[in-house]
Amino acid sequence: MAQKTADRPGGGKNGLSGTGAALHGLMERLYPICRSITGDGVRQTLEILQEHIPVEIREVPSGTRVFDWTVPDEWNVRGAYIRDSAGRKVVDFADSNLHVVNYSIPVHRKMQLAELKKHLHTLPDHPHWIPYRTAYYNRTWGFCLPHALYERLADDTYEVCIDSDLKPGHLSYGELYLPGETEQEVLVSTHLCHPSLANDNLSGLALATFLARHVRSAGRRYSYRFLFVPATIGAITWLSLNRDRTDRISHGLVVACAGDPGGFTYKKSRRGTAEIDRIVSHVLRHQPTPHRIIDFFPYGYDERQYCSCGFDLPVGCFMRSPHGEYVQYHTSADDLDFVRPWCLEESFAVLVSVLEVVEQNRILLNRYPHCEPQLGKRNLYPREREQHLAILWVLNLADGRHSLLDIAERSNLPFHHIADAAGKLLAGGLLAEQDDLAVS
Amino acid sequence: MAQKTADRPGGGKNGLSGTGAALHGLMERLYPICRSITGDGVRQTLEILQEHIPVEIREVPSGTRVFDWTVPDEWNVRGAYIRDSAGRKVVDFADSNLHVVNYSIPVHRKMQLAELKKHLHTLPDHPHWIPYRTAYYNRTWGFCLPHALYERLADDTYEVCIDSDLKPGHLSYGELYLPGETEQEVLVSTHLCHPSLANDNLSGLALATFLARHVRSAGRRYSYRFLFVPATIGAITWLSLNRDRTDRISHGLVVACAGDPGGFTYKKSRRGTAEIDRIVSHVLRHQPTPHRIIDFFPYGYDERQYCSCGFDLPVGCFMRSPHGEYVQYHTSADDLDFVRPWCLEESFAVLVSVLEVVEQNRILLNRYPHCEPQLGKRNLYPREREQHLAILWVLNLADGRHSLLDIAERSNLPFHHIADAAGKLLAGGLLAEQDDLAVS
Amino acid sequence: MAQKTADRPGGGKNGLSGTGAALHGLMERLYPICRSITGDGVRQTLEILQEHIPVEIREVPSGTRVFDWTVPDEWNVRGAYIRDSAGRKVVDFADSNLHVVNYSIPVHRKMQLAELKKHLHTLPDHPHWIPYRTAYYNRTWGFCLPHALYERLADDTYEVCIDSDLKPGHLSYGELYLPGETEQEVLVSTHLCHPSLANDNLSGLALATFLARHVRSAGRRYSYRFLFVPATIGAITWLSLNRDRTDRISHGLVVACAGDPGGFTYKKSRRGTAEIDRIVSHVLRHQPTPHRIIDFFPYGYDERQYCSCGFDLPVGCFMRSPHGEYVQYHTSADDLDFVRPWCLEESFAVLVSVLEVVEQNRILLNRYPHCEPQLGKRNLYPREREQHLAILWVLNLADGRHSLLDIAERSNLPFHHIADAAGKLLAGGLLAEQDDLAVS
Repeated sequence: MAQKTADRPGGGKNGLSGTGAALHGLMERLYPICRSITGDGVRQTLEILQEHIPVEIREVPSGTRVFDWTVPDEWNVRGAYIRDSAGRKVVDFADSNLHVVNYSIPVHRKMQLAELKKHLHTLPDHPHWIPYRTAYYNRTWGFCLPHALYERLADDTYEVCIDSDLKPGHLSYGELYLPGETEQEVLVSTHLCHPSLANDNLSGLALATFLARHVRSAGRRYSYRFLFVPATIGAITWLSLNRDRTDRISHGLVVACAGDPGGFTYKKSRRGTAEIDRIVSHVLRHQPTPHRIIDFFPYGYDERQYCSCGFDLPVGCFMRSPHGEYVQYHTSADDLDFVRPWCLEESFAVLVSVLEVVEQNRILLNRYPHCEPQLGKRNLYPREREQHLAILWVLNLADGRHSLLDIAERSNLPFHHIADAAGKLLAGGLLAEQDDLAVS
Repeated sequence: MAQKTADRPGGGKNGLSGTGAALHGLMERLYPICRSITGDGVRQTLEILQEHIPVEIREVPSGTRVFDWTVPDEWNVRGAYIRDSAGRKVVDFADSNLHVVNYSIPVHRKMQLAELKKHLHTLPDHPHWIPYRTAYYNRTWGFCLPHALYERLADDTYEVCIDSDLKPGHLSYGELYLPGETEQEVLVSTHLCHPSLANDNLSGLALATFLARHVRSAGRRYSYRFLFVPATIGAITWLSLNRDRTDRISHGLVVACAGDPGGFTYKKSRRGTAEIDRIVSHVLRHQPTPHRIIDFFPYGYDERQYCSCGFDLPVGCFMRSPHGEYVQYHTSADDLDFVRPWCLEESFAVLVSVLEVVEQNRILLNRYPHCEPQLGKRNLYPREREQHLAILWVLNLADGRHSLLDIAERSNLPFHHIADAAGKLLAGGLLAEQDDLAVS
Repeated sequence: MAQKTADRPGGGKNGLSGTGAALHGLMERLYPICRSITGDGVRQTLEILQEHIPVEIREVPSGTRVFDWTVPDEWNVRGAYIRDSAGRKVVDFADSNLHVVNYSIPVHRKMQLAELKKHLHTLPDHPHWIPYRTAYYNRTWGFCLPHALYERLADDTYEVCIDSDLKPGHLSYGELYLPGETEQEVLVSTHLCHPSLANDNLSGLALATFLARHVRSAGRRYSYRFLFVPATIGAITWLSLNRDRTDRISHGLVVACAGDPGGFTYKKSRRGTAEIDRIVSHVLRHQPTPHRIIDFFPYGYDERQYCSCGFDLPVGCFMRSPHGEYVQYHTSADDLDFVRPWCLEESFAVLVSVLEVVEQNRILLNRYPHCEPQLGKRNLYPREREQHLAILWVLNLADGRHSLLDIAERSNLPFHHIADAAGKLLAGGLLAEQDDLAVS
């Protein structure tokens, strides 16, 4: 199922508000840092985010049991290289942190090419790209390099050095809680464990950061929780530490791979009909960029954990091109050129629209349910046909069993038209608020 | 969504029973009368219908509160014209009652063309047609005229006269109640407030009148209520006066725009799965003229009121070409030539079929539910394959949970085949009647 | 709706295990016997089946009331012919048992061609084929012959002889009950009343016999009941005698017309969503031969009785080309050449797969429902992507509300992948068995 590519509106940089450039700018700062599921790179990353939002850095000791898992030893790497007998560094961590297999144990010795090759990873189909490889739970080491370079390696004796630590320490993650009128929460989660890879997932980090800043700047009904966690083990750790509080999560989104020029992809929660699923689908249907809605499957990002059967939280995954569907995925070609400011800006705009619907969706009650009320005498009779229809739809369905989103879906009108109409009718005394926040 | 046009069977007038001509004849008598939402035109119209059916004329005083509305003052118009300085009547109500904006307040004075033009309405795209305009709840006046004539108006001083009344009186509507075996009712409602417009809605008036005559002539299980009401305010008035009795309405149809050569359109009730929705859909599916079934939306005719959320009655709307989908809509081109006797006859036949299913649909019980009964020994084994299938389907599904309509739908056989088979099985002692009328 | 024909894999006899040849061999032995709804042919047939499986022969006396029916007199025929005045037998039962109308009363007399013709049945469109006709509940007689022969009959005096009995005796049927861990049963029913017709239904007899042998040879959770009954009256008789035990039937299949080269056809039970309906649909979807799933209709084979509304059992019908959709149906052309060993073998394989799913489908529980368990530390992390996905799907959906079939359907993976994954997870301690057999 090939996904259509989004067209850049206007073809150039015209029409951008600056948000795209700012998002890209944040990614540029984060790009050089060598991140992993633990270690100083994670902390440096979170400290940069703290320049934008007051995210708290949590530290969980190695060895902590988190459900079926154990928080691993902390990994840090200071440098690494492969040097030939002539003293030339043919591979150097200083050039790209992808060169070292993530979580490599320390090594420093000489070896022949034949032995070295057992520790080398390349992409023969893309001979100039460096692959991204990890070895979190195996005590091993390795280097990743372009296949073209690999093929030029002479039959020589090489000095191999990985100056890394793997020892008890902490798993670090970032958490920002923004209380709202109610304790019911919106969860936004994104993974921060990848080194110099731009779309997966600096795009998610930048978007979640800007989204948090946006949420902070406005009044809000819901409380919001932003999580910046190492993939899998980070989400598992957070869920383990917050197990009894997950029933507060009313809506959730994992954000990943959201800066490339592919169309939007929304992967529904395991429930499939959660309000967040319906909201994202609605917003995507009413915007111009190509999109697709896919069913949940137990593979991908941290929705795997949030949607494990013991939690089954209403958490979907917002992406542009999903993991594995773009050729640059998990290679050095997923770089700062692959993500585009206009794509980041477009993704941001959709996410903001989604949260607007989350905030505004509720059940309102028609105070004049028997026959239509007389709009004319209240100056509520709009000239514009679509506005008129929106008003009639709200009146017709505001029976206590339909939320504004239900009304938008049944009328096939954009949510904001329905919300506008509801606002006018509320102001005009024709609708009443329900006390209860809950919309089914 | 363009609707296919129905083909005239045979291409000429052949094959018509005379009902189409009679329906058209009634429309011809009603056509010249100037109707509005109140006034003598409504009464004259109802008096002509009384020649066919014993419809009662109800009078509700101006000022009566009906839900959020108030019955307006009564409007009558005796004549109107625009006369130029040479004494020629350039526009004359006597030529067409569409010339006067419906509910115009009285006026008699001279004015320059520039001022007059503020009160003139035309259709530039159809320069020879007169538009239909109303001003029920604004105290204003105006004239409607062909755009070609408007363009020829000289810069002159004009005498403008509308000899109308707008003063306390009554809102009149027609009601015919035909009691049946049960108090549960079938409602047929049609609006009678339009002046010389044929499809919208003299076609509805004629069809409802003939349908009432047809119902009177036959035995019936249900009681029937036929309403001839001014649109919106009339339906609201009736609902207000009969608020506590609306739960008797088991099935309802609004009939409008049903004489043009477009295919059939059935707009479902708000519920969408009401028995009447399934019945009309079934009947239309098993007849040859193109048709479409559309979902409810809160715009259109008086289904808006019957399906307001406080009532939510099972009332759909039966049409050929819906309002706004034919270019003649609300213009002088919606005339007696636009509606065709064969179309009226076809619409009548469908409505009669619908009421047949309404009357005959019920749950019957198989008295031999274990294995098939032996049809041969009872001479119930039909030669014709479709009849045989109908008998087997009825026996298989007559388990107390399926109505005859359910059986017709699941078997994909026309209802009358299923009803015939049920009749034979009932006569043969293989089926039993349920006491209860209700079919889910 | 034309059904695609299955392609013979490989084009020849290659790849067959021998089961197809064995199935065809059993059909060859049964083919010459003259069967009817009663009589010695039924007993001889069951005695041959007893060489393969310990099926019991039940005898029900003529005159026994079975629901709305009565077990008829027993019919046997020893010979029959039409002899011309020259003493030549122009039609002889010894050549084909289709020549005699099944259940013909005895006759022996001379008559002119004109009178004889009233008792002759032919197929003018297929002049070389003999039709198959029955007269179970009419006391009459007749002959069936090729139309080409019929047209050559001279205007002569013919001696007509049918040496048959129709007198009180028994209705015979075969029943094999194979007890399993639970009393809940799987019913396999096939009709055995047709004389020399191969696809309808010696194919069903052979397949059910081999399936019974297969079931006997293996452990089983369910009990199994195989019925070999005369069509209609046999199923009605069994249901009448076992009326109070039918609630034990959890799954059932009627097998008929399953040896021709058409694609598979599965006719769902009256319920339409029974587990057996879902299982057969699933198995057919994941095998390469063209197939179609059709809704229940109250015509066909003994599913008519099992699915009559008083029983409404979860019994579907497994076929290749259904009755009436192949031109050889109920003629002498439905012979041993029309059914193919490879088609029989393919049908057998599908039926075996269906029973495997029936046996294996159940609800298992994830013992680690909160977040994914760590597969790596248990050596459960498969290299192969589809196996990995199967494991993740099972873990994600093993919440007590999804059976393995539900998981296979939602994941769109073949059942056996899901069952394999479940087996590994069970062995690895990540899943637990539910005590209860029932899967919703």
